[in-house]
Amino acid sequence: MTIKLTVSYDGTSYCGWQNQKNGLSVQQVLEDGFFAAFGKRVNLIASGRTDAGVHAEKQVVSFNSDGLTLPPEKFSAAVNSFLPDDVKILKSERAPDDFNARKSAKRKTYRYSLYFSETILPLKDRYSTRVYPVPDVEKMKSAAEKFIGTHDFKAFCASGSSVNTTVRTIYSIDVTETSDGAEISVCGNGFLYNMVRTLCGTLIKCGYGEYDDDDLAAILNGNRSRCGKTLPAKGLTLLSVEYR
Amino acid sequence: MTIKLTVSYDGTSYCGWQNQKNGLSVQQVLEDGFFAAFGKRVNLIASGRTDAGVHAEKQVVSFNSDGLTLPPEKFSAAVNSFLPDDVKILKSERAPDDFNARKSAKRKTYRYSLYFSETILPLKDRYSTRVYPVPDVEKMKSAAEKFIGTHDFKAFCASGSSVNTTVRTIYSIDVTETSDGAEISVCGNGFLYNMVRTLCGTLIKCGYGEYDDDDLAAILNGNRSRCGKTLPAKGLTLLSVEYR
Repeated sequence: MTIKLTVSYDGTSYCGWQNQKNGLSVQQVLEDGFFAAFGKRVNLIASGRTDAGVHAEKQVVSFNSDGLTLPPEKFSAAVNSFLPDDVKILKSERAPDDFNARKSAKRKTYRYSLYFSETILPLKDRYSTRVYPVPDVEKMKSAAEKFIGTHDFKAFCASGSSVNTTVRTIYSIDVTETSDGAEISVCGNGFLYNMVRTLCGTLIKCGYGEYDDDDLAAILNGNRSRCGKTLPAKGLTLLSVEYR
Repeated sequence: MTIKLTVSYDGTSYCGWQNQKNGLSVQQVLEDGFFAAFGKRVNLIASGRTDAGVHAEKQVVSFNSDGLTLPPEKFSAAVNSFLPDDVKILKSERAPDDFNARKSAKRKTYRYSLYFSETILPLKDRYSTRVYPVPDVEKMKSAAEKFIGTHDFKAFCASGSSVNTTVRTIYSIDVTETSDGAEISVCGNGFLYNMVRTLCGTLIKCGYGEYDDDDLAAILNGNRSRCGKTLPAKGLTLLSVEYR
């Protein structure tokens, strides 16, 4: 039977979703939780790998439960009791046999959180990134619109990464002012390594008025040197994954 | 010269404000920061001791800067560069000579954050406390009104604490629903050890309909056995301290 899990984690202490030789991954913590609960190894597939330090509000994970005799909705409580507080399964449910959390994913939404302050704010700094001076959020909003649609995002792609294509579709980018900063929510059909973090760094430069339309056109033509810097992982959260 | 500091900290890693034999205190981290910056020890006085694990958005601290030749507003940046990211000075300024962060304090406001969920939510759990089943927030609001005013709060006072009087004045208690829980803000002229956390535990019981007016009257008459449980420190944040 194929089971779909909705998983949340605070990525601060982990080397990312994927199992690695050095460092503890979220995948390993979860797979160890299954082993502790059932004495069997499962192979978990996530909608996508989140990088070291990136958080997830609702990551989606699938696995084949053959050999584990438990009603689908019971896996969350059974495994949660063996998980640390920073990784938890919010929901478990039966999925169609051919469901694959990665291959079946249609849209993902990430949120990047910023706070504007000259000084580090200890109670903000774990889940958002400090930006100062304060950028013009209206300028960020209008720049964001230019990135919506299907583009070759190779300028945002970390050098050295190997993917078949760097063309992706962004369905929406919402830049919202908050009481002490801004949130950038990006929904797309998939994202290249570091793409959201570099896109957000570029939007901040737009908020400082450093780019005109020609600069943005150059970036969308693949000119990586014109991009803003890649922002830290801690401000990034995978919010949701949508399926057909 | 007397200097007033506004300090923020994430209390998770600390044994509280006050220096202790076992465990690292916020006071020690700050005093070590001054020593690193100036090669001299200062004696910091806070508006009040926050307990182990309690956070502060704007704690107020005073000290005598005699012997340190720096303009008052420069102390924050000078010391911050020697502080960890979870303790920072937001502001430094000159205060009247007789200003004492503890003795001069008139009102303090604390906020207790709750989230309502059957499962631990990793991205909520650092700064708020999980409550389940979901209490009736309207019942919490009306119960909160009973505690406003000047009362003998000895029922909320941890046993073994020695204070001159257990009479305190609460000016306001605001219970606000949030997207996934509630926040309780309490403003008073001072608080006994554990008082806010036990008051909030009592309000949750009110939210479950476990108390009627007679129960609340008994609590306000000093019956500790009728109080709700003392909630964990992690959900509590000192928001602000007011002076004349």
